[in-house]
Parts: sequence; structure tokens; C-alpha cells
Amino acid sequence: MNDAPGPDKTAASASEPETVEDGVIAPALIAQFVGAIGDGNKFFLQRTIKELYPADAADLLEHLTPEAFRKAIHLLGKDLPAEAVAELSDSARLEALHELTDTAIVAMTGHLDSDDASFLLNDLEEDRRARILSRVSATDRAAIESSLSFDDESAGRLMQRDFVAAPVFWTVGQAIDHMRTVAADDLPDTFFEIYIVDPAFRLQGSVPVSTLLRAARETPLKEIMKDIPVLVRPEMDQEEVAYLFRQYNLASAPVVDEAGRLTGMITIDDVVDVIQEEAEEDILALSGVSEAGVNQSVFSAVRARIPWLAVNLATAFIAATVVSLFSSVLNEFVALAFLMPVVAGLSGNAGSQALAVAVRAIAERDLEGPLVARAIRREALTALLNGLIIAWSAALVVMIWFQNPMISLIIGLSMTFTFTWAGLIGILAPLTLKRFGADPAVASSVFVLTSIDMMSFFVFLGLATLLLL
Amino acid sequence: MNDAPGPDKTAASASEPETVEDGVIAPALIAQFVGAIGDGNKFFLQRTIKELYPADAADLLEHLTPEAFRKAIHLLGKDLPAEAVAELSDSARLEALHELTDTAIVAMTGHLDSDDASFLLNDLEEDRRARILSRVSATDRAAIESSLSFDDESAGRLMQRDFVAAPVFWTVGQAIDHMRTVAADDLPDTFFEIYIVDPAFRLQGSVPVSTLLRAARETPLKEIMKDIPVLVRPEMDQEEVAYLFRQYNLASAPVVDEAGRLTGMITIDDVVDVIQEEAEEDILALSGVSEAGVNQSVFSAVRARIPWLAVNLATAFIAATVVSLFSSVLNEFVALAFLMPVVAGLSGNAGSQALAVAVRAIAERDLEGPLVARAIRREALTALLNGLIIAWSAALVVMIWFQNPMISLIIGLSMTFTFTWAGLIGILAPLTLKRFGADPAVASSVFVLTSIDMMSFFVFLGLATLLLL
Repeated sequence: MNDAPGPDKTAASASEPETVEDGVIAPALIAQFVGAIGDGNKFFLQRTIKELYPADAADLLEHLTPEAFRKAIHLLGKDLPAEAVAELSDSARLEALHELTDTAIVAMTGHLDSDDASFLLNDLEEDRRARILSRVSATDRAAIESSLSFDDESAGRLMQRDFVAAPVFWTVGQAIDHMRTVAADDLPDTFFEIYIVDPAFRLQGSVPVSTLLRAARETPLKEIMKDIPVLVRPEMDQEEVAYLFRQYNLASAPVVDEAGRLTGMITIDDVVDVIQEEAEEDILALSGVSEAGVNQSVFSAVRARIPWLAVNLATAFIAATVVSLFSSVLNEFVALAFLMPVVAGLSGNAGSQALAVAVRAIAERDLEGPLVARAIRREALTALLNGLIIAWSAALVVMIWFQNPMISLIIGLSMTFTFTWAGLIGILAPLTLKRFGADPAVASSVFVLTSIDMMSFFVFLGLATLLLL
Repeated sequence: MNDAPGPDKTAASASEPETVEDGVIAPALIAQFVGAIGDGNKFFLQRTIKELYPADAADLLEHLTPEAFRKAIHLLGKDLPAEAVAELSDSARLEALHELTDTAIVAMTGHLDSDDASFLLNDLEEDRRARILSRVSATDRAAIESSLSFDDESAGRLMQRDFVAAPVFWTVGQAIDHMRTVAADDLPDTFFEIYIVDPAFRLQGSVPVSTLLRAARETPLKEIMKDIPVLVRPEMDQEEVAYLFRQYNLASAPVVDEAGRLTGMITIDDVVDVIQEEAEEDILALSGVSEAGVNQSVFSAVRARIPWLAVNLATAFIAATVVSLFSSVLNEFVALAFLMPVVAGLSGNAGSQALAVAVRAIAERDLEGPLVARAIRREALTALLNGLIIAWSAALVVMIWFQNPMISLIIGLSMTFTFTWAGLIGILAPLTLKRFGADPAVASSVFVLTSIDMMSFFVFLGLATLLLL
């Protein structure tokens, strides 16, 4: 969530080769660190953490057992760099904040950009947050409170309030001199463009820093400024922001209020985290997991998975009821029981395929406007073709196995039908859920897989009843 | 893949509001565009495409039917901006290259950075590529050929050869003057940092452009340069590069050869595409789809999905064979056939959950070193707990439904076992596949789901045979 300030240079160049290689912490360092925690060697912990980049320090801490982690946080106290805490996984960060004193957290918020500080404080209980906010500087407090006033996962939360703005009538030289002198303390650590505003602070355009650097000092900013491809508002959903960054290859983007006034800046490092998060959410949601993390406890892992299993318990018994409707034909032909998993399993897989493709296409905004009808047609046709190939291959196997042309015919016909159904429901369910404002990845699996199971048993055993009894 | 140069300014400011809003193409524009294709109105097509940002132009083209797309590419010819072609999806880009003349493609490669140019040419058949390469300038050809000499999905392919390097003994003023004058044509469009090299062109450090801008002209570069957190080599896998960019919040990174000499630069916009791609690959792979795209034909969609279904056809019949071993107990107690899908379905879902969590953790590098043993223990315990809850809830339902304590006991015992199995195999399969160098997302589903199906039928029906017959 923050720009790596870099480790202490002299110390790092001596010890880095043995500690972190390509972003992987050396096991020897972890062992040493664990030993130092056991010995209560505060000095070693502080030096090691300080030598590492924040993300590496966070990784090292996450490699500890829960008890060692708590003890390390305790020993480090306010020497724990704020940037490292911001890089911890959600559950580890919560745990760390829980262990830290208010004083340590107050010191940390002073070191962070407003977006990172509010990200940290957002995790705290209401009253503790209020207590800590009352102790930070008035400017920081205002920035953090304004950030927290926006919804979770909105652009307002991602944006920082430090950015560089220059009046539209300035020259390149004036802008550079301004940055060199007046505003040196208020500038963000790193920035990729400066924003050009009119006297009412309304955004007019942007100038990439690399363009600024190359332009002659007397060039008016107006001449080299670029149009902003899209205006990000603080209320915008972070997924939308991520889409716009990808679409227009942005490294940073200005945020403007309703009146078009510049209010903040979002940088790519925060957006990269969003992209990763959203993709991870989709993967987990499609498998019915609400949350996961390397430091998750067994209890929270159970809690993240049991809802989907509970729903599935209900739907599985509905499917079982469908099967029970056909007990007479099952009693007569036990072979049908062998084949039930073939029909339902394969159709279910075809449905999962269609669903994964559709969920990704929706996330990529590839399923919009005239593309929807075309995609549905394509899914139906793909499912029908796959159905024909797989169903009649299965029919052939059944023919060889049971030497019963009727059962073979039943498998072939019913699977052709259920495959087509699977393909259609696999794309229609997420599209419908999206239309009703639900997350297509989260709720689709239930609908899709249950309906395919029921349809498979109903069609297969129903057809068997008609043709065999 | 490239930096958006921005649309023609005067035209865009007049017409943009009605054409593209927040990255979404207005349906009216698509309709107009389709009309112009029908009329062969070359001029309208050219003007519209030129007015749009490359990514929007690509989106507009992808909204067309395959025939309209081909006709549009044909009409646009060499007026199709190279940057828009680079933004097309894989299948659309291939189609476009197929429609374009060699002359048009030669002109395009001249407009692109070497990484984008090689990305484009990589898709062409060997002999056509050679023909086109023989017609581009010697410098461009050398850069493209060197890029193509690296593996697909390597850092060498992602990197561009345009970057700014300054000798370690220069001052800020010298570096700025150099960029303003000598190298103006050779500089990349946008860059975020300059690299500091020794006389042998070995990388010494980097200076962010925003730092350069703020420093006094007489400051030696040596004083403000930062350590490079990690050295990217051209052979490095793109997934590894993406991980390092995320880990260290990078906007760009230098690429060095074995001797530590600076050879290229990778920028975040290309890495964002990689992050998206890799996450998408995992989602699709977990559902058994090898490739997907909005413009994919039915034929390629079938080809992308049939291998997994074919493997599954085989494994489904293995599961059916397992069931067939227990025909005598099924003949006696048809209720078991109703309950088979409950046991297998729920355990399969528990396995999918564990698998999705493990695949994501591996991709995030959260499953390494001492964390592996802890994660396996946690999965086993989570699965056992979930198993106990779900299995005995199912047993209760069965008790109420069938009023048969024996069948209820069989469901409870067998599901407790199969849930634990599902959790363990869900994490062990991807870890084992990774150890053998296979992609954990691609191959795991087959192993995991097949083994759970077989185990479910075997344990459930086996226990039933023991206790009921």
C-alpha cells in the first residue's frame, strides 16, 4: 500500500545477499529471527526489520507461528515500521494492531500517506480509532477522517491527498522551481505526473514528470499538458478504478469532486493490490470460499467455508429427492445408479467451465451490449457440440460395458440435453445475478451446480423410466 | 501493452462525451460505426478510431461481428493505429494481423516500442515474420529479434530497450540537460526513473524522476540514487516479475544481464497485464478451461474445453466402476442411490474449496518454507471440523427422512472421512504438482475431484455393505 522507502543502505549492502533473494526470505534468517524472539533480543529484531524492505519485513513476520508473531510485535513496539504493518496480510495486520499500543499506532499514522493511514485505522474498533485520532495532528486527522468517510473499496479510500498541482498559466521552469523549494515537504514520496488546474482548482490536464523533465524551462505547461482519459470520482468502486487503470495504461490518476475540482491522486501500486484482490476474490468465490489467508486460523477458515457447504447440504438433499422419485426404475436397473455420477459429474464440469468463462468475461467487461447475445449463442453452441461429443462417447462406453442399447441411448440423449443446459445456465446465471446487482462470482456456483445436478438426475432417470419401465 | 498517446485533442473534446464514458463505448457509436462499415465509409472509420484512445478503439473493434471486424480492418488498413492493435484481445489481434497487409504491419512496428513490436510479430507465422522483419529498419529489427530470442512469458519479452541511463559521476543538471537535448528521440514516451551505471554499463542504482525534478541541479546523482530492491534478469518468468513488482510496489524496473549490465526496462503497465492474465489463467484452469476470450469462435471454445471433459469422461467411468462393485447392496437398499450424490457432491465441494485456497496461496507465494506444514495441518483440521458439522447434519436429515439409524450412521461416518480426505488432497495435490514443476492450477482439479469421487463411493457403499448386508 505504500512506496518502499528502501532499507538502511549501509547495513543492507553487507547483509542482503544472505537474507532475501528475489523476494524470498532465506530460511536461515527466519531461524535466526525466531531464535532472537525466544531470547527477547530486541536489538536484533529491530536491526533485521529495519534492514529489510517493508514487504520483506512483513513476509518475515508472517512466517512466524502465531505466538512468535505476537511476541515479535510486542518486542518491536513502536520500532515496527508503519510501512511493514501496511504490507501485512489482513489477518496478520489485525493481530499486529491488536498487540500494539495506542502510542505506537499514533506514531505510525504520522509516517504514512493518508490513504495508508486510513487503511490501517479502518481495521480498529470504533472507540479505539477515535482515541487514536484524537492524538494525531489536526491536518492528519482531517485527511484520515475525510478518507474514512468514503465507502470501503471506493476510489476515495484508495486516493492520497498529497499530489502536485500547478496553475494552468505557469511554465515548466516555474513548476520545477516550485517543487524544488516551496512545497518540498508536502510532496508525495514518488509521483509520476503533475496536475494542471484553473484558479478554481478545477482539473485541466496532466503533465507526466518525464515530459516535464525534457521540456525547456520556458515552455508553458498548457502546451505540453495531456487530456485526462477519464475522470475518477471519489465514490467510484475500486474495481472500476482498476479497470480504468488497465484500460488506459495509467501509472496514476487524479480524483475530482462533482464540481471537477482536484481532490486527490490514486497511484498504480494501490491499484495493483486491488487487481490482485479482486481476481483472488473471484477464484475463491467460484469455489465457495469467502476469505482466505496464510495466517488464517482454523476457526476463521471453517467460518469462511461452512456457509457454502450448508447451502450445498440443502441443495444436495433436493437432488437426492429428485433421485428418490425414480426408485422404481432404480430398483429394476441398478446399472442406472452406476451411471448417475457420470451424467451429473460431466454436466457439472461443463457448467463450471461456462461459469468460469462468463465470470471472467464480466469482470473484464467483455460481456456488455451487443456482445452478450453473441456470447450466449456461442456458449449454447459450444455446449451442444461438447455435449454431442462427450454424450455419445459415453453412450459408446456404456454400450460396450452393459451391452444394452436402451441404456446407451438414454445416456446419450440425456447428456446431450444436460450439457446444453449446463452451458446456458453457466452464462445466464452470472448475467442475471449481475443485472440484479449481485456479485456474479459469489452466488452463481450454487444456482448453476444445483440446477445441473437436479436436471441431470431428472432427465436421465426420467428418460429411463419412460423407456425402460 | 503501450502508453496511450491520447486521442486527437480538438476532435476528442468535441465528441468524447457521447462516445466513451468511463471506458464504456456508447451503443450509438457502435451502431454508427457498423453503419459506416456497411457503407464502406473509410473516412468515418479512420476519424472515429483516431479520436479514441487505443484501448477504446480496440474495444470498439471487438464489439463488431467477425465479418464486420474483418471488413473494418480491411477498410482501415495502415490507418489502424499500431497501439490499438496491441490492445486487441489475443484472438482479435491474430485475426487483424491476418487481414492486414505486410506493408501495414511494417509501418506499425515502426510506431511501437520494441516490446510491443515483438509482441505483435510473435503471433505471425515464421515466414511472414521473416518477410516483415526484412523490411523494418536495422535498429528496430535487431531490437525485435533480440526480444523474440527470449522465451514467451519471460522478462526479456516484457522489457523495452528504450530507457534513460546516466553515468554515476553526473549531476542532476547534467542528466536533465542530456534528456532535454541529445537523446530526445531515443527516450521512451514515459518513464518513471532513470538508471545510474558505471563506465562498463553495470547498474549502480536508480533515481525516480520525481526525485530528480526536486533536486538542485548541482546535486551528484550518486547522492540521491536508491538501491534496486531486486535484479530482474531477462530469463526470469513473467509471473516472478509480477510478484516482485507487487512485493516492492514498483512502477518500473531495470533488467540486467549476467554481468550486471543494464539491458532493458520493464514498466508497470505491462506487468499489470501479466497480473491480470495469470489470475485469469488460474480461474479458468481450476474449472478446466485452457483459454477463453470474448471473440473466441465456437470451434476454439470447444477445443479449449474438450480435453478436460475427455479426461473427466474417463475418470467418471472409473467412479462408475467403483459404484458397480457394490451392486448387491444397492439392489437391496435403493435409498443408497439417492444419497450417493450427497456424499460425493458435498465432499467434492469441500475439496474444491481447499484446492482454490491452496492454488491462490501458491500463486501468492504464501505456501513456502515453514508455512507449508502449518497450512497442511490447518487444512486437515478445517476439513475435519467442517466434515463433522456437515456429515452429522446430513446424518440427522437422513434419520428423519428414512427413519433408519444404520443408514444415518453410514452417512455420518463416511462423510466425516471423505471431508478430511478432500481437505488433505485439496492442498497436497497442488503442492506435489508444484514440486514436480507442473502448474498447480491446471492439473490439480482432475486429481482432486476424481480421487474424492472414488473415495466417496468406495467408503460410503463399502461401509453400507459391511453394516447392512
